[in-house]
Amino acid sequence: MTIRDLEVIDLRFPTSRTHAGTDAVHTDPDYSAAYVILCTDAALEGHGLTFTIGRGTEVVAAAIEAFQHLVVGQRLADITADFSGFWRRLASESQLRWLGPEKGVIHLALAAIVNAIWDLWAKAERKPVWKLLADLPPCELVSCVDFRYLTDVMTPEEAIDLLERQQRTKAERESELLRAGYPAYTTSAGWMGYSDDGVRSLCRQALADGWTRFKVKVGGRPDDDRRRVALVRNEIGSTSTLMIDANQRWEVGEAIERVTELAEFRPWWIEEPTSPDDVLGHAAIAKAVRPLGIGVATGEHAANRIVFKQLLQASAIDFCQIDSCRVGGVNENLAVMLMAAKFGVPICPHAGGVGLCEYVQHLSMFDFIALSGTMDRRVIEYVDHLHEHFEDPVVVRRGRYSPPMKPGYSITIRESSRIAHRYPDGKVWA
Amino acid sequence: MTIRDLEVIDLRFPTSRTHAGTDAVHTDPDYSAAYVILCTDAALEGHGLTFTIGRGTEVVAAAIEAFQHLVVGQRLADITADFSGFWRRLASESQLRWLGPEKGVIHLALAAIVNAIWDLWAKAERKPVWKLLADLPPCELVSCVDFRYLTDVMTPEEAIDLLERQQRTKAERESELLRAGYPAYTTSAGWMGYSDDGVRSLCRQALADGWTRFKVKVGGRPDDDRRRVALVRNEIGSTSTLMIDANQRWEVGEAIERVTELAEFRPWWIEEPTSPDDVLGHAAIAKAVRPLGIGVATGEHAANRIVFKQLLQASAIDFCQIDSCRVGGVNENLAVMLMAAKFGVPICPHAGGVGLCEYVQHLSMFDFIALSGTMDRRVIEYVDHLHEHFEDPVVVRRGRYSPPMKPGYSITIRESSRIAHRYPDGKVWA
Repeated sequence: MTIRDLEVIDLRFPTSRTHAGTDAVHTDPDYSAAYVILCTDAALEGHGLTFTIGRGTEVVAAAIEAFQHLVVGQRLADITADFSGFWRRLASESQLRWLGPEKGVIHLALAAIVNAIWDLWAKAERKPVWKLLADLPPCELVSCVDFRYLTDVMTPEEAIDLLERQQRTKAERESELLRAGYPAYTTSAGWMGYSDDGVRSLCRQALADGWTRFKVKVGGRPDDDRRRVALVRNEIGSTSTLMIDANQRWEVGEAIERVTELAEFRPWWIEEPTSPDDVLGHAAIAKAVRPLGIGVATGEHAANRIVFKQLLQASAIDFCQIDSCRVGGVNENLAVMLMAAKFGVPICPHAGGVGLCEYVQHLSMFDFIALSGTMDRRVIEYVDHLHEHFEDPVVVRRGRYSPPMKPGYSITIRESSRIAHRYPDGKVWA
Repeated sequence: MTIRDLEVIDLRFPTSRTHAGTDAVHTDPDYSAAYVILCTDAALEGHGLTFTIGRGTEVVAAAIEAFQHLVVGQRLADITADFSGFWRRLASESQLRWLGPEKGVIHLALAAIVNAIWDLWAKAERKPVWKLLADLPPCELVSCVDFRYLTDVMTPEEAIDLLERQQRTKAERESELLRAGYPAYTTSAGWMGYSDDGVRSLCRQALADGWTRFKVKVGGRPDDDRRRVALVRNEIGSTSTLMIDANQRWEVGEAIERVTELAEFRPWWIEEPTSPDDVLGHAAIAKAVRPLGIGVATGEHAANRIVFKQLLQASAIDFCQIDSCRVGGVNENLAVMLMAAKFGVPICPHAGGVGLCEYVQHLSMFDFIALSGTMDRRVIEYVDHLHEHFEDPVVVRRGRYSPPMKPGYSITIRESSRIAHRYPDGKVWA
């Protein structure tokens, strides 16, 4: 099977009209995607996307097109036979790498393409991506990973060893996953732009639906934060789990003060307390708030595996929030998950947006079956919007994700939605 | 004066045809620029560019256009009256920031625009940028800087204090600069793609021209590196200064081994030994090679002030290599220079490329007059190509930069060159 064409679509959803997705920093997101379709000479297409929040999606689309010459004309079998080699040819393209390297627009673009290839590969193998990953022999799986800049913390041999340890017991965990699903938490009740009454009724609805873990946005005025966090803790009761998320709003010292002030509401974690680039800042915050029983979570804006390496080395995080398209797709997330497993830090993926829930469920499920071997202290984020646009949307029941069973990466957006939301000429925008 | 239009041009120079600019990672650069012209309702234009190396320049151009709505229609006086506010509105635009934040394509684009505003401001004040900066009262200068995410290391008050200390003696240093120029080193003799004979004759020519500081590219095969470094040390003699540059080629442990093997040739610094994102890796390398008398230099690919903050906090660098357009233009470089001054780490800017020499001379000269107050252990990189395309090219004599005297940021490319090198339709590419 040969990739014959790479099509890019700028898709935008007008979410800012309802304040869904609002936080202390992103005040008016229009959830969007730079969407890739790999056309082949067979009956299969590979679909992938990278998530954006409105303006600038066209810039990512232009970056995807800049990679076209390295993708079109390639045989799927050649790519998967040396997937880390293919990945490095894109990530280290001798001229394009100047625009990163391996960060920002150029890396978001790479992620959309790489994820589309995983979708194609999984469809060719007639498996969902989680199952494809879990079934790969350890040395084949590890051969998908570019270990460049990681070998001071992890070598391919160590990675194989970590995976080998779980091989014998994989089948049991796969059965458990199919039976019980994977634990989730909801962010849908606590967006920044929602009124107190709105948050209150969403909490009650979520409790009725079986949710036991809730995340609230903070990073506003201290008294507003306090009122909202108190409100949610009061609604969900003392046995439910509460997380708070500042979306990079604070200085290092300010984060320590503000989290300390909210400690009485017993947040399980503080997410993105400060700049996502500040490894040492996160380490300082974690050191200060751990004695209060609060962990530090970050990663949705960590640019690449090298930033994650340092977050782990510096004991800066208690929860590792991989994002399916911020780093370079499945391959680089495997690198991050392998390092997190070595350090014993749980993977709790970032989701929401457009298709992030659909994507990351595969990664957490692979992690459970074949790498960490546990769901303990591990949860997948869930946000309840835009799923209706997907052909194979996530299934979440009583606060748990059910494993997707269709072949591929669950990321295909319905053709009718692709036409209606195309920017700027789709009917939603015209 | 009001900005009426923002024009973007994709300019590329076919430098890969001569192997100029080649290193261990960038094997075929076509030095390029996403070029910005701010048109005003007065007689003045502001020019700025961000440096790229060929493919992908169109992506940066698209990102510059995405900022247009925040620039066109603004009054220069309103921008400069609250320059950090203007800067933050661009760097933290609520939807565009998702593409970074503050890194990669979107930040390179911001730099081109911000630098064009400095060019315009300096022209309006009829001063070169170095003089505009050096003459600004400390509190006005500091008001140009966004201290977000820096306050654990530096506050505006501390920054003002650092500048105040140098105020009284500025005039003396300005005279010294005008008389003696600013020390430079040359990279032009040691590109990776050059033959040994080529390197040898370039070294001899440079010595004859008065150069005493030379940089050589490493990161190839160990025996090739050794032969080339030995050759240059032999040519330039024991009293000249030699630097080596691996352009991010190595793993952390590998860098320590390889630099140790080259220690006998007494390099003053090892530049970019590993990933530019690896603060802790650079700290480990610096700790290992400092006892050999070798410093660590990096920064041309450090994404923003937060990465520089950590490089300084972690004692990871001995030389701080700011780049005029990798971070968000003059304003963010002021933040980096202020922090470096606090830590006593010398500023040795990255230059070469297209227009980087023209740009960075202004920053080093300001640093000398008004901030660090010294040229000790400080040098500006010099690369001898593409200057003929500039209206006000750098003047380098006997290994020293002469201060530019024309108003602006010295970055205006001749109109004939802009027409000939426009990609893909200029005559050089057609």
